[in-house]
Amino acid sequence: MATAPSGADPLPSWNDGANKQRIVEFVKAVTTEGGKDYVAPGDRIATFDNDGTLWLEYPLYTQVRFVFDRIRQLAPQHPEWREKEPYKSVIAGDIKGAMASGEKGLFEMLLVAQSGTTTEEFAELSRQWVLASKDARFKRPYNELTYQPMQEVLKYMRANGFKTFIVSGGSVEFMRGFTQDTYGIPNEQVIGTRQKLAFEVKDGKPMVMMLPQLDSNDDKQGKPINIAAIIGKRPIAAFGNSDGDFQMLQWTTAGSGKRLGMLVHHDDAAREYAYDRDSSIGHLAEGLNQYQAMGWGLISMKNDWKTIFPAPK
Amino acid sequence: MATAPSGADPLPSWNDGANKQRIVEFVKAVTTEGGKDYVAPGDRIATFDNDGTLWLEYPLYTQVRFVFDRIRQLAPQHPEWREKEPYKSVIAGDIKGAMASGEKGLFEMLLVAQSGTTTEEFAELSRQWVLASKDARFKRPYNELTYQPMQEVLKYMRANGFKTFIVSGGSVEFMRGFTQDTYGIPNEQVIGTRQKLAFEVKDGKPMVMMLPQLDSNDDKQGKPINIAAIIGKRPIAAFGNSDGDFQMLQWTTAGSGKRLGMLVHHDDAAREYAYDRDSSIGHLAEGLNQYQAMGWGLISMKNDWKTIFPAPK
Repeated sequence: MATAPSGADPLPSWNDGANKQRIVEFVKAVTTEGGKDYVAPGDRIATFDNDGTLWLEYPLYTQVRFVFDRIRQLAPQHPEWREKEPYKSVIAGDIKGAMASGEKGLFEMLLVAQSGTTTEEFAELSRQWVLASKDARFKRPYNELTYQPMQEVLKYMRANGFKTFIVSGGSVEFMRGFTQDTYGIPNEQVIGTRQKLAFEVKDGKPMVMMLPQLDSNDDKQGKPINIAAIIGKRPIAAFGNSDGDFQMLQWTTAGSGKRLGMLVHHDDAAREYAYDRDSSIGHLAEGLNQYQAMGWGLISMKNDWKTIFPAPK
Repeated sequence: MATAPSGADPLPSWNDGANKQRIVEFVKAVTTEGGKDYVAPGDRIATFDNDGTLWLEYPLYTQVRFVFDRIRQLAPQHPEWREKEPYKSVIAGDIKGAMASGEKGLFEMLLVAQSGTTTEEFAELSRQWVLASKDARFKRPYNELTYQPMQEVLKYMRANGFKTFIVSGGSVEFMRGFTQDTYGIPNEQVIGTRQKLAFEVKDGKPMVMMLPQLDSNDDKQGKPINIAAIIGKRPIAAFGNSDGDFQMLQWTTAGSGKRLGMLVHHDDAAREYAYDRDSSIGHLAEGLNQYQAMGWGLISMKNDWKTIFPAPK
């Protein structure tokens, strides 16, 4: 527990057990100067998926909720949407009807909802929405529906000289609306799915505009690719929860020296949700099949975590 | 001079004058707590072009020298190059002949020279080449042909809570071969031109490979676009030297609050080189026309800088 005051538990929301021990022993090993596993601070890179790893993603990705709200907000300027699916269902508040359009329909709406503003204006739209949001089951805004045990991991690793990065399938500008305030992670350490951008000068004012086109999908192979391109260092620790994180953990833990790969398993229907192989949200099958062979830890929300969400403020 | 010991000059290689004063007054203004121009440390983002701003670029971009050397190194595996331009000229050491192929030919060679390895292997190739390089005129390796006054600006800004980023047209993996050691800037703060990458698993070993295709050209409009996408914050200070930096300075200095935009003007043929409007390398015309109207500083290497390169070690 390297820099924690003697006796203080850096991970108080974790039950004692193999997973807590794995994290603490890893941090101790890579921060012990002169030890065989020592890693210089500049190379202590840890990457974290967001949806389902740091905050709630089930039964609907939070960003999809935002997109639906934004479609409703933009609807008065688009009378044609009244008769056009999936917009019609979204405007009527019929989530099942909206989901019937499948990934293609959702993605089309996402690009419509997330274009036509500057990147700065868009992050502000996200910020305001997250602050005003409320989950139906938990009756709290989404920025309070983060996992307290993972918040402790972020702080613990940073206190031990790690740079913590988010590497998530969410849109990077959407995440930047809340990641600094919610996780203490600055914009320049947030990697996500990117849309194409355009530089424009309007009335002498330069601006960077969001276009309704995909640039890079930060999922599966896209994660190690974006880490290599943007961070330029291979992480020594990676946390995820779905098969979208498989390649990130694979690349991270294949590096030389001591490595840490951890998957959060949603197995707690009472306090949160239980889903894995049969879910399209947070689908986890390959990870369950291979985590032991890969030497990764499988975190049981039910057994490893004393609490799920932070105490209300 | 915020954090410098009282009386110490943070920019000893700069002659007293308007440009040195502009930099020092800017840093003082944005770091004075309670002052009207105060900027929180997390928002003290400064971006620096590399070629011609931090190190030598004339009469040939250093990366082009590297590409030529790598083509010669790869030539034995490509007998067809012996009769094919521009490879034939490069192999013969005929730089003029090689340049006759124009941008298209150079770019084709760059993609050939910079693919087929992992990103990690490629940065190591760059590192070794830079250490072993030697400039014909100055008889020093290129990592010693950086501008001492700009090295002082980097250190001075970092000592005052700035995060310094490189935002350059050079290939990001090429730059990462030397940017940490040469400028103290870590890989994750280096933005450059990107090639497409592929995630592959060979014999069970996951790797991120460089492909011979352009992904993002970090020049002109590409600079503010990549800053918005990757840093996610608008810089408050930007340094460049060519029209490739125009949009970066334009976007930076159009933000609210106090801003700093500076162009290095190569006007010192005796100690380095003199080039601007008529040069294809480091072409500077729009910047010369508009810097005053834009409120930017034009740094004269001849008059503002006491020395150009660091003293030999």
